[in-house]
Amino acid sequence: MKTLNVGMIGYGFMGKAHSNGFAKANHFFDLKHQLKLKSVCGRTREKAESFAKTWGYDDVETDWRKLIERKDIDIIDICTPNDSHAEIAMAAAAAGKMIMCEKPLALNGDQGQQMVEAIEKARVPNMVWYNYRRIPAVTFAKQLIDEGRLGRIFHYRAKFLQDWTINPELPQGGAALWRLDVGAAGSGVTGDLLAHCIDTAIWLNGEFDSLSALTETFVKERKHNLTGKVEKVGIDDACTFMNTFDNGSLGNFESTRYARGHKALYTFEINGENASIQWDLHDLHRLQWFDYKDEGPLRGWKSIHVTDSDHPYMNRWWVPGLAIGYEHSFVHQVADFIQGIESGKPAAPTFRDAQKTQRVCDAIIASGKDHTWHKVRKD
Amino acid sequence: MKTLNVGMIGYGFMGKAHSNGFAKANHFFDLKHQLKLKSVCGRTREKAESFAKTWGYDDVETDWRKLIERKDIDIIDICTPNDSHAEIAMAAAAAGKMIMCEKPLALNGDQGQQMVEAIEKARVPNMVWYNYRRIPAVTFAKQLIDEGRLGRIFHYRAKFLQDWTINPELPQGGAALWRLDVGAAGSGVTGDLLAHCIDTAIWLNGEFDSLSALTETFVKERKHNLTGKVEKVGIDDACTFMNTFDNGSLGNFESTRYARGHKALYTFEINGENASIQWDLHDLHRLQWFDYKDEGPLRGWKSIHVTDSDHPYMNRWWVPGLAIGYEHSFVHQVADFIQGIESGKPAAPTFRDAQKTQRVCDAIIASGKDHTWHKVRKD
Amino acid sequence: MKTLNVGMIGYGFMGKAHSNGFAKANHFFDLKHQLKLKSVCGRTREKAESFAKTWGYDDVETDWRKLIERKDIDIIDICTPNDSHAEIAMAAAAAGKMIMCEKPLALNGDQGQQMVEAIEKARVPNMVWYNYRRIPAVTFAKQLIDEGRLGRIFHYRAKFLQDWTINPELPQGGAALWRLDVGAAGSGVTGDLLAHCIDTAIWLNGEFDSLSALTETFVKERKHNLTGKVEKVGIDDACTFMNTFDNGSLGNFESTRYARGHKALYTFEINGENASIQWDLHDLHRLQWFDYKDEGPLRGWKSIHVTDSDHPYMNRWWVPGLAIGYEHSFVHQVADFIQGIESGKPAAPTFRDAQKTQRVCDAIIASGKDHTWHKVRKD
Amino acid sequence: MKTLNVGMIGYGFMGKAHSNGFAKANHFFDLKHQLKLKSVCGRTREKAESFAKTWGYDDVETDWRKLIERKDIDIIDICTPNDSHAEIAMAAAAAGKMIMCEKPLALNGDQGQQMVEAIEKARVPNMVWYNYRRIPAVTFAKQLIDEGRLGRIFHYRAKFLQDWTINPELPQGGAALWRLDVGAAGSGVTGDLLAHCIDTAIWLNGEFDSLSALTETFVKERKHNLTGKVEKVGIDDACTFMNTFDNGSLGNFESTRYARGHKALYTFEINGENASIQWDLHDLHRLQWFDYKDEGPLRGWKSIHVTDSDHPYMNRWWVPGLAIGYEHSFVHQVADFIQGIESGKPAAPTFRDAQKTQRVCDAIIASGKDHTWHKVRKD
Repeated sequence: MKTLNVGMIGYGFMGKAHSNGFAKANHFFDLKHQLKLKSVCGRTREKAESFAKTWGYDDVETDWRKLIERKDIDIIDICTPNDSHAEIAMAAAAAGKMIMCEKPLALNGDQGQQMVEAIEKARVPNMVWYNYRRIPAVTFAKQLIDEGRLGRIFHYRAKFLQDWTINPELPQGGAALWRLDVGAAGSGVTGDLLAHCIDTAIWLNGEFDSLSALTETFVKERKHNLTGKVEKVGIDDACTFMNTFDNGSLGNFESTRYARGHKALYTFEINGENASIQWDLHDLHRLQWFDYKDEGPLRGWKSIHVTDSDHPYMNRWWVPGLAIGYEHSFVHQVADFIQGIESGKPAAPTFRDAQKTQRVCDAIIASGKDHTWHKVRKD
Repeated sequence: MKTLNVGMIGYGFMGKAHSNGFAKANHFFDLKHQLKLKSVCGRTREKAESFAKTWGYDDVETDWRKLIERKDIDIIDICTPNDSHAEIAMAAAAAGKMIMCEKPLALNGDQGQQMVEAIEKARVPNMVWYNYRRIPAVTFAKQLIDEGRLGRIFHYRAKFLQDWTINPELPQGGAALWRLDVGAAGSGVTGDLLAHCIDTAIWLNGEFDSLSALTETFVKERKHNLTGKVEKVGIDDACTFMNTFDNGSLGNFESTRYARGHKALYTFEINGENASIQWDLHDLHRLQWFDYKDEGPLRGWKSIHVTDSDHPYMNRWWVPGLAIGYEHSFVHQVADFIQGIESGKPAAPTFRDAQKTQRVCDAIIASGKDHTWHKVRKD
Repeated sequence: MKTLNVGMIGYGFMGKAHSNGFAKANHFFDLKHQLKLKSVCGRTREKAESFAKTWGYDDVETDWRKLIERKDIDIIDICTPNDSHAEIAMAAAAAGKMIMCEKPLALNGDQGQQMVEAIEKARVPNMVWYNYRRIPAVTFAKQLIDEGRLGRIFHYRAKFLQDWTINPELPQGGAALWRLDVGAAGSGVTGDLLAHCIDTAIWLNGEFDSLSALTETFVKERKHNLTGKVEKVGIDDACTFMNTFDNGSLGNFESTRYARGHKALYTFEINGENASIQWDLHDLHRLQWFDYKDEGPLRGWKSIHVTDSDHPYMNRWWVPGLAIGYEHSFVHQVADFIQGIESGKPAAPTFRDAQKTQRVCDAIIASGKDHTWHKVRKD
Repeated sequence: MKTLNVGMIGYGFMGKAHSNGFAKANHFFDLKHQLKLKSVCGRTREKAESFAKTWGYDDVETDWRKLIERKDIDIIDICTPNDSHAEIAMAAAAAGKMIMCEKPLALNGDQGQQMVEAIEKARVPNMVWYNYRRIPAVTFAKQLIDEGRLGRIFHYRAKFLQDWTINPELPQGGAALWRLDVGAAGSGVTGDLLAHCIDTAIWLNGEFDSLSALTETFVKERKHNLTGKVEKVGIDDACTFMNTFDNGSLGNFESTRYARGHKALYTFEINGENASIQWDLHDLHRLQWFDYKDEGPLRGWKSIHVTDSDHPYMNRWWVPGLAIGYEHSFVHQVADFIQGIESGKPAAPTFRDAQKTQRVCDAIIASGKDHTWHKVRKD
């Protein structure tokens, strides 16, 4: 059993989620490789060492370039803020490393396109952490769609609602709040939250054709943690858009951090000719299913508790009725990535797959500014 | 089209519900008879007249014996407190009237048996207002069971939870609170609430074999509205019982007026070999349905919105998705009673049907006192 | 107690709902006027007579102009297809009748404006049947907003999803399917369903500023019931739009008749700085409420069963826990209309109120065609 | 940082859950000890070795007595079938090991009492894996109760419903199905499922006074995996009981493996004078809360998504809205056990705590047989 050494860059919230994914994958999945948390890289040595100790990394680096150069590192896992993904990923590709990159892939589509080209030229295994594809209920939705059970699709709607930035006293920027700083994040809810919704939508319903967006920044100025000054807020606080898909269905998307009462309410619904599906991250182990082929008086929305052994991934976990949670999507992603390498059938989403989401985000941001419909660019 | 004149005795909460049932039946159901609210009887003329005016009764009576003697009255509707049902019903039967009697039929099984004998001797159409049978979702449950979809039944459980008597300052007795006075009511939650659960259970799952009950009176003394004195509370505030049914299934029943947070939470669930059903009065237009014959990974509880034209009674009302409410069960009961007369197939529950519930209530009260199992008497 | 005679024009689905509203209002509300179903008008005498008999109308008319001329008619209730509202309403106004008109007010904003002018010139009491305002849970939402509990509003979203026109074999036009015929209906889901959402939104959240819409006709041709030929479908099958409100909040609206699994799923959600509200027509007796002022760990969405006597309208009905349904909103509307006349404070929505919705609908239809943002016209 | 070596006996479903608990505890909790999966013991060396490899145990044993003798083992974790708990635990206590024992503690109360005495005599840290106490929502319920928010308690009800043994062709006994073999399990749903409900109830609501039970074995004979013959089934397939608590409240409990549609539906509800609580294992990250102190019209059941950092244990995991699952209760239990050792305040439930549940189970089984009320014995 060969060992694959992981070198992780960044150790924030996502560093924890990814480390857990690497640590658990061999416990629950039959892999031909043993994953090893080898080295974690962060600018502050002390914090990196504390993180390494907790998670059992052998050592730490403070310069990501050094990590990439190391011969004993097989997989580079990028979980830094968005503005450094491109540089790190392209360097790692050049060094021949396997790469797992946190989403969104890039700050924008053009940058993303450069990354795709670099990584494909290097021919290294690569993946982007759109982890929600691997919530069992979501994967199950994909199966049902692929089996043709929905028929012609009429509607796709998705929302990602949060409420954590309503307080205008909340500052922007720095390690904890880089998501509010347009420089580090590239955009607000669009890249942070809608990117998830878009990735799932492309996976389940195909590519986007054109869209029109409405974006808003409710709190116009916030103190910046790095400068200490009150500065203009450059991100979109809220974004709603409507679109057409290549398959002729209509989309309705919305994301905000100002929806009081919602913590991380990522929901989607697909309405097909014959059946419909709903899912909700707040109760992620359930899938709502409506089948028009049921006998008339017995039609209704069925709440499927996706915890049986014949549900995706669930034969690896506990017994029917016992739920798994958010973090398991990362374990699944690691397992699928490794199995993709082992089988020669790379697991999605690759950089190329994730780039499609970048182009949709570009169109959203542009439409939010010029108030016209935009065709989504296809590379 | 022949007119049937209704004479109603009592004009409290149930008087309103029954009057509405009579007033609406011809608007929504094809009946060969026209129902007419003819006379309402109450001890206080002024109040009875006010009620008559609101509902369009032609006149009032203050003595129920006079009402019963009137030749222009066809149907006697009894909605007085429980302790007067027997006397009125037997007199009305002797006078040859059709009789609709509020539930529970009687103060106890022996009294009920006398009533059954009297009414069957008189051969008059008769019915007891166990209205919940005629909530469309409940009637639909009956259809599904009768079609054999559940297979062997293992479990039946029902609860009727309320929270309106927790305050120990609430008095007992009198027009508004006779339900707390054991003299007028006969029992507490057993006759008031469990009687509904038992009637439905007998209808859906067959007769009770034996049971063991636990009853409790949490507030031991309350001021009595009629005497003005603090008096012992004679009713059961709460009652839970377990039982066997003739079909071999197990029952679990509970009722209380001390379940903080529940207004009128009448729920039942039936678990069969092949399928299960749940229903809840708080969302009365929905039926929860689980079918083991569904494909494995797609199994789940289905929430059926019982508002389609192929659902019981619903072709008489609005369009799919538009709910009806509590009061409609009374309209259905009137319509079924009249159609039963017209067709010669009397609608259930008759006095004889309702008497079965009395015998179960007797066993509950007795078991609550002596803490042993009781066989339910069958007349 | 003075009698008000109702003359109703049209006797379809809405004729039934309105008649029930008039028939029940005096049973449950203290009004100074007695409502009397006097005459119903329909082109086919036989059908009108059958309807009259069921509901107790004294007589029928086959020409609405005659009905309007009658001195014994006080209230003209219009429940014909949309294309005749204007002519009838203006004639009735000229005849000095009180007018209750089914929604939407008109085929478009210009026609609506003419109607408003005519009726205001005639100074007759007038109202449009946007009945959903009077579902107790919705009225309760209005109270909570008016008390200032939500603070600054960030988001308003509403959907009205149905699934009854997915079958391409369904024809268009004629008595049963005039809603699919653009000539009779003026528009598709916009005037039929979104009009309800817009009326509620204006009531709860104030007027619309500008919007951008996406409309679609999934089934391009259907057989026409009147011509017998396959004809182009002129209505919008689906419509989604996003908008800004005058109060700075963002709107997201969607309606369709192609959302498999939804019968009449009218839902709305409002997100304020301090609290949020959700409502759903499929469970119309519940209001979902989130209050940020609750203690931190105890925050959550509360499901309020709007059936207590301190909830709007509910002191007129049953007891806590016992739900009312769809039809009751019409009873409330009648009661409020009459009480508005009695008190001299006209109940909303008047024709002028309803005209605001027409202008929003105009902007939607226009934007759906030219794919640009439209400012909503204010008369 | 001192290492504590774990020696686990058994490697079935619970072995996996416990191993995961030990493996993750240091990743998410600040402990002064490092847990090490040292040795796993099973009768079949090959299987034990496979398990050891997956989980990173250093070695295996095939004789549990040898494991107990080893000086390098600090904690003995027992996850064998119920009939071997006593012997192993008492031997481990004699050897001075810390002991974590899978529930139920023993086959019956007398055996349990011996174990308590042995372990207390040995003065070793000890705990029983009643893991549901450590689901964050359940722990939160405990906090709310301890803060006195519920007031006087009237009702406690709990159910644990499953449906996996309905098929009469399912055999009994052997490694996979020892839970159906009364010899190995001691009882059926009582010890397996109700034991959980009882442990939680004692924790939340105090001790049991007396009870009356109804037990049933629906499938009377099953093939036995060890003998190959059809043998009588000795376990209880279903059990419902009612009881009084020492605090005067009434209990209603039920468990079955014949409730079609329920996988592992452990639910409980507590009704207090001022507030009520509901919880459901199928949606384990939610707590339902009703507070009578809320403003009247705003009262309702609140669905609290127990994923905030001010909820029990949740500051160790992800961010608000992101759920954890079943397995995390075991991680919490390990962390609490270790912190109990570190702080000198032993974490509950100890063997002594768990013995209370044994005595309740004894009373249930006895009452199920003789159909009388039983006082629960208190050691």
